[in-house]
Amino acid sequence: MAANLKIFQASQVTDFQDWSRDVAGNMERTLESLLPASNTAPTRLHDAMRYATLGGGKRVRPMLAFAAGLISNADPERVRIVASAVEIIHAYSLVHDDLPCMDDDVLRRGKPTCHVEFDEATALLAGDALQALAFELIANFKLADSAETQIKMQQLFARACGSGGMAGGQAIDLANVGKQITLPELEFMHILKTGALIRASVLLGAYCGTALSEADLAQLDRYGKRVGLAFQVVDDILDCESNTEKLGKTVGKDQDANKPTYVSLMGLAPAKQFATELLQDALDALSGFGDRAERLHQLAEFIVRRQH
Amino acid sequence: MAANLKIFQASQVTDFQDWSRDVAGNMERTLESLLPASNTAPTRLHDAMRYATLGGGKRVRPMLAFAAGLISNADPERVRIVASAVEIIHAYSLVHDDLPCMDDDVLRRGKPTCHVEFDEATALLAGDALQALAFELIANFKLADSAETQIKMQQLFARACGSGGMAGGQAIDLANVGKQITLPELEFMHILKTGALIRASVLLGAYCGTALSEADLAQLDRYGKRVGLAFQVVDDILDCESNTEKLGKTVGKDQDANKPTYVSLMGLAPAKQFATELLQDALDALSGFGDRAERLHQLAEFIVRRQH
Repeated sequence: MAANLKIFQASQVTDFQDWSRDVAGNMERTLESLLPASNTAPTRLHDAMRYATLGGGKRVRPMLAFAAGLISNADPERVRIVASAVEIIHAYSLVHDDLPCMDDDVLRRGKPTCHVEFDEATALLAGDALQALAFELIANFKLADSAETQIKMQQLFARACGSGGMAGGQAIDLANVGKQITLPELEFMHILKTGALIRASVLLGAYCGTALSEADLAQLDRYGKRVGLAFQVVDDILDCESNTEKLGKTVGKDQDANKPTYVSLMGLAPAKQFATELLQDALDALSGFGDRAERLHQLAEFIVRRQH
Repeated sequence: MAANLKIFQASQVTDFQDWSRDVAGNMERTLESLLPASNTAPTRLHDAMRYATLGGGKRVRPMLAFAAGLISNADPERVRIVASAVEIIHAYSLVHDDLPCMDDDVLRRGKPTCHVEFDEATALLAGDALQALAFELIANFKLADSAETQIKMQQLFARACGSGGMAGGQAIDLANVGKQITLPELEFMHILKTGALIRASVLLGAYCGTALSEADLAQLDRYGKRVGLAFQVVDDILDCESNTEKLGKTVGKDQDANKPTYVSLMGLAPAKQFATELLQDALDALSGFGDRAERLHQLAEFIVRRQH
């Protein structure tokens, strides 16, 4: 029985790795085809957009969209578009976040950051154009059974990107540098900065399929919120514990920059405990979905247990 | 007869001034209410977004949207949303364009530029959040009789903002600095950089009303293209002839920056002649619309004849 259970778990894990590789491969091919070609003008801008988006990243947000799509039996052709849109927004946010006037970072995903590889102006414009491209995608493709639902998806998506979402979170992050802030203030920042787009990934994936009840959507949103926060807590833990080579980005930056983190505010062990609690709550939110939520379940575990 | 004609013209001019003041006033109130409030978090970001958008600008793009809306008998409640979205994109583009890594400008609309008044990171994020807000607006409000038409408007809008539109034009503009380029190359840059959003303003305003024929839309697009180009030619002429106080932005920058302009490539008199030809072609495009095109007609004249 114990042996059987182990095999079952092992097979589950292998299975998840295969699945996540599939998603990452699908994403790479999809993004490759959706991004403007390198040989069309303006070529340098398009090169920078491709450089910032292709060939790297954990593709966590696309995985969340695909996994949530399984809840509503969504057409993968639709999900790959919303997943691309979300990933493109994520890529643009990293490009702008790495700029000298922001985090001034030179290394990202094991490669020189966009403004180092190209130049600041090109990186700025590549980020701007990527944001527009993401919105173009969710307007250009049919993503829901009705145009009304698609417009609802666009509303949710735009809100997640703006001053009440990701961009707002980055502004608060910036304002927090060197400040004494409380845990609720840190949480508010992260709920906007990374949480908004992660929640959007989950909901947008789900919206690509058959209509879900308000109650189901609320549980998915609860899952997305917990996973988004757990993602950040784990990021802080890894930034404290890992090394630059493994993480593919400069490590210890947060501490150097005197940025408040879950580790600096709670301590390492309580931060780990908090991540575990968030994981449990995320999994609880899935309890009503049965087998359809298997990938979301595995993803939450992956996000909290990852080593980079 | 001659006297009557003069009175008629004078009354037309006064009438246009009243109308454009009305549009500007409507825009200011609308933007004021659509932008996130100064007292909601993140307040500094919201202040910067408001600073960059409110209290200035010629509001040419909103005027084009309102004037084009008259062609299709559009509901002004819809037009003011698309006009706001377009103006917000314009405002964000100026904020990013003025950044040190781009044009490095300190004066805009007679005020310190956004990064001078706030700081570079805040200006960067304010631009990013403004772009997201514009897309949120065209998703949040009902702008067309059918959701399908609204999605078509979103496609057109996003394309005008991205690497095949405004952001792409800025990238080409940047790449052109110090280079010998041809007139067609200069035109290609401007058709993207300012032309795309101006054309979008016209078409979006028209789409807010009753459906127009493809032929009518094509004429409106021809009008938008000519007016967009004329706008830039006149900008170059003014940058060469005017003074900083009158223009409210640093003058002679283009020449200082060794940027190719219509004046530098054609000479002053031929550039003026070219602007007049573009104006005539824009007016010709309106010939089938009769009285409904009166405001578009006046606007084209205004754009070419303006002194700042």
